[in-house]
Amino acid sequence: MGREIEVIGFDADDTLWINETYYLETEQEFCRLLAEYRGSSEEISAELFKTETANMELYGYGIKAFTLSLVETALRISNNRVSQATIEKIIRLGKAQLSKPLVLLDDVEQVLSRLSRSFRLIVVTKGDLLDQERKLRKSDLESFFHHIEIMSDKKESDYRKLLRHLDIEPRQFMMVGNSLRSDIIPVLGIGGYAVYVPFHTTWEHETADESSISGPRYRKISRISQVAEIVECGLAASG
Amino acid sequence: MGREIEVIGFDADDTLWINETYYLETEQEFCRLLAEYRGSSEEISAELFKTETANMELYGYGIKAFTLSLVETALRISNNRVSQATIEKIIRLGKAQLSKPLVLLDDVEQVLSRLSRSFRLIVVTKGDLLDQERKLRKSDLESFFHHIEIMSDKKESDYRKLLRHLDIEPRQFMMVGNSLRSDIIPVLGIGGYAVYVPFHTTWEHETADESSISGPRYRKISRISQVAEIVECGLAASG
Repeated sequence: MGREIEVIGFDADDTLWINETYYLETEQEFCRLLAEYRGSSEEISAELFKTETANMELYGYGIKAFTLSLVETALRISNNRVSQATIEKIIRLGKAQLSKPLVLLDDVEQVLSRLSRSFRLIVVTKGDLLDQERKLRKSDLESFFHHIEIMSDKKESDYRKLLRHLDIEPRQFMMVGNSLRSDIIPVLGIGGYAVYVPFHTTWEHETADESSISGPRYRKISRISQVAEIVECGLAASG
Repeated sequence: MGREIEVIGFDADDTLWINETYYLETEQEFCRLLAEYRGSSEEISAELFKTETANMELYGYGIKAFTLSLVETALRISNNRVSQATIEKIIRLGKAQLSKPLVLLDDVEQVLSRLSRSFRLIVVTKGDLLDQERKLRKSDLESFFHHIEIMSDKKESDYRKLLRHLDIEPRQFMMVGNSLRSDIIPVLGIGGYAVYVPFHTTWEHETADESSISGPRYRKISRISQVAEIVECGLAASG
């Protein structure tokens, strides 16, 4: 019924605040810088994605990993002809992205304020520890959350570990996020509740087939404020 | 008396396993690669340290941050004349460092095995989440630890947060580590116990003045196995 939920986990990037938009801006600038060496933005982006995927196991998520992959891609696709000044610019692009303003998504503050009165809320995110802590501080949302869980990945085993740590059963946990692959599918897989709030852009690495996801423990919503209605009325009852 | 200790935190890098040695090896190789642009290794290392210090707030700790600072330093000290092939080599040096074998320090396994029977042991480390988790997995020490705490920094406020999270008082906590600045001084500062096990090399950023540290809650040892004697006999009694 969803009435047994005790802890609600919120993904951070593109669920609470803007993130992917900044990656796309950096990538567009990167494609402009590299245009003289390798034609279209599509080709350059495809090469970048190849590098990121190959580096994922070693580097993991986050802007530092992204910046290193940008430099590596620039060298490879230019056959080492990319200028040193351009590499310097790429390093600066990464730093600029780490310093971007924190922009909350609509209704986030209101829904967290309301839910924090009845549930234990936590941030469940992957990526760079320092960067995520910095964003949470900038967001002024810290007081709504019991704590922040930063995981190196969001697979079923990671969520199982999280629930053991929280000392709760899967049916007492609900996850809210914008990535089917990281926030929804693994949580449903271990028996928890999951609410999908799509963001207008999703990184290719995070995409998944939506059509196969269904069931009484899953909901898709268009505004994060609907999470309050869902948990307060019982997930299944209103589903 | 030290008999009230319930949780023992172990720093990881250069306390449980070799780490700084690998940074020094990468740095030596970096100095060789850059020698044609800027004379002595001492000068190059000083420039690198300057870059790392300037980037610390934005990048934090870990090998990805280090690699980005290496590239930035190479560009700066060569006035952008460093070859693209050398930059490629620097990126590869960083990846090689992330893939280094895990080498445990002497007596670590024995002392953890012994202490884990009577105390809750945790790993308390900063740096890169993915990299630290990977090292802990490689170490085969996971079963001795209740969990791993990865913090973005190790200041007094970070330890206070940790103790709140563990739901214990400072006098119930002892920290063991090789960095006076990160493992010893802040823990003594909040009223906990601290055991200093120096490693043969310490990164300049982590050094501190040892002479000012004393008191019944502090001990310096030369082998990690001595931690067992200290806690089993009472810290103050044997101090």
